[in-house]
Amino acid sequence: MKKKKIVTIGGGTGSFMLLSGLKKYQVDLSAIVSMADDGGSTGVLRDELGVLPPGDVRQCLVALSDSSETLRRLLNYRFEEGGLKGHSFGNLFLSALEKISGSFSRGVEEAMHILNVRGQVIPVTDQDAKLYLETTDGCIFSGENEINHSDFSPGKIKKIYFNPKIKANKKALKCIKEADVIVIGPGNHFCSILPNFLISDFSEAIRKSKAKVIYNCNLTNKKGHTDGLDVDDYVDSINGFIGKDRIDYVTFNVKKPSRELMEKYEKIEGGRFLVDFNVQKNPNRKYKLIKGNFILNGEAEYGKADALAKTRSFIRHSSNKLAKTIFMVSEIENYKNIIKEIL
Amino acid sequence: MKKKKIVTIGGGTGSFMLLSGLKKYQVDLSAIVSMADDGGSTGVLRDELGVLPPGDVRQCLVALSDSSETLRRLLNYRFEEGGLKGHSFGNLFLSALEKISGSFSRGVEEAMHILNVRGQVIPVTDQDAKLYLETTDGCIFSGENEINHSDFSPGKIKKIYFNPKIKANKKALKCIKEADVIVIGPGNHFCSILPNFLISDFSEAIRKSKAKVIYNCNLTNKKGHTDGLDVDDYVDSINGFIGKDRIDYVTFNVKKPSRELMEKYEKIEGGRFLVDFNVQKNPNRKYKLIKGNFILNGEAEYGKADALAKTRSFIRHSSNKLAKTIFMVSEIENYKNIIKEIL
Repeated sequence: MKKKKIVTIGGGTGSFMLLSGLKKYQVDLSAIVSMADDGGSTGVLRDELGVLPPGDVRQCLVALSDSSETLRRLLNYRFEEGGLKGHSFGNLFLSALEKISGSFSRGVEEAMHILNVRGQVIPVTDQDAKLYLETTDGCIFSGENEINHSDFSPGKIKKIYFNPKIKANKKALKCIKEADVIVIGPGNHFCSILPNFLISDFSEAIRKSKAKVIYNCNLTNKKGHTDGLDVDDYVDSINGFIGKDRIDYVTFNVKKPSRELMEKYEKIEGGRFLVDFNVQKNPNRKYKLIKGNFILNGEAEYGKADALAKTRSFIRHSSNKLAKTIFMVSEIENYKNIIKEIL
Repeated sequence: MKKKKIVTIGGGTGSFMLLSGLKKYQVDLSAIVSMADDGGSTGVLRDELGVLPPGDVRQCLVALSDSSETLRRLLNYRFEEGGLKGHSFGNLFLSALEKISGSFSRGVEEAMHILNVRGQVIPVTDQDAKLYLETTDGCIFSGENEINHSDFSPGKIKKIYFNPKIKANKKALKCIKEADVIVIGPGNHFCSILPNFLISDFSEAIRKSKAKVIYNCNLTNKKGHTDGLDVDDYVDSINGFIGKDRIDYVTFNVKKPSRELMEKYEKIEGGRFLVDFNVQKNPNRKYKLIKGNFILNGEAEYGKADALAKTRSFIRHSSNKLAKTIFMVSEIENYKNIIKEIL
């Protein structure tokens, strides 16, 4: 049985979570990673060394790496003193490899060899550009970090774009073309997910692809960014940039988080922060909703060294539950045949 | 035939050269590395992060690493811009591993795994101390970097010492105890070689060891440091710190460097910069002199990425010629038996 080609699209901890689960299955795994990040250690490296943002790629490499616990801790290690303060060692590792090998993509390829990565990690672009977001009331937010830390209402967004315009990495396009399953999200909607679809040849590749497309809808809305959005809103937003109703399946969590977590979030986020699904809203929706319990519930899914190790105090996806569902969807035809044979 | 246990003692490019040659032989190789360095990137990391000096260890790890050319280039890569300017990636790698694993020695052990090192690299101590040199005319030079860049006459040295007093790494002591052959030098006499022997339990271990001791005498004297020293002076200096005439063999180059190199050195170093051997000076010397052609003569012995890649414009040891001689000495008993059997 040939391994299914699964391609994830995202960035940051959302991709880390997803890949940590999916790598336990016999699948051919590729992670396409957003390149909009310009905050923290990544931002300093972009400014000072003129490199592309390493942070999100680093997290995906760690997720897929078969190397030792120490190497994983090393990649996530942040210097705490002096001129190196705040720099993640893994970011320095990727930036040095970019400098040596002449391009960020080639640097990432070298990193995959060194770290013994199961699958591949592909930056969505090899070009350097800044993310901008304009609102209908005339604000222009410049850079992913500024957008991430600004408040705007989702109804007031006029435009989100890269400047200068950028093209997708050819390897990313090839990967989309050959994919059996494309998995989008979860992740920060405006800062990690949408930036991938703003690259027009990348969206075109998804529009034309024959893959099944699964969207893992976020569990909670982000205050000042996506307040009040429901599942259809998220799906419409992504399909809008793809230019076609390409999303076939949406995973949607129906299990209520613990009372403790709910109270914690209510204090910070206010009333209705869980993403809703309104069945009456759109009787003609093109996607199938996969309802289930997708939240992390006290299980230890990560090593001590991993970025999500202290994740239990947040409402988070369970990487194992989500990965199992995605694997089932990817193998659904095979299961159909087995069922037919038994019948 | 059991592999001979060869232990090298030194630091910096001298050890790099020696190990690059020795690793081509079927020997059990350990590199004990001086921990006095406090200049450049290493000095900044010592000051700002409170780590032990990674620079010399890095060079030995690269020499013994079986990993790819890219990984070797990466370890030697120096950042060129911003707050990271001047830092060697390999130094950051070792400093982060020290922070994660809790001690420099354990960090180096992790590095050996990650880099697939053939043999082992052992810092001579795990304790932090500064090197001092006092002259008879009342100067006190403080720190390896200051000593390295100061002028003093070798006849005027009153005292060289670490403050605070430090103990040797236990692994280094064990290694000396079990060694078949101990190889000292070449290297910067006051900054890379002697600092090892200033650690009293380390010198005691060598004094008591049953190993053959080979000393690779430097080819040239260092202006303002070792002007006019001959082979016996170097040997006496090291034996003095060991507390016994422990050096059994001394390799001594008799091949004159090219006219071009001689003229270049004469301009910078003045007249008699080549280290001399004066057979009449000491008829009772305890060591055997191994005379030979030990200099690099236009051969390419290193990869493009290596620290010694551009070594041809200096008077340097040939790593291949020196390693061959050391291997022959280490196996001399076996050769004797073979010769006896033939006779």
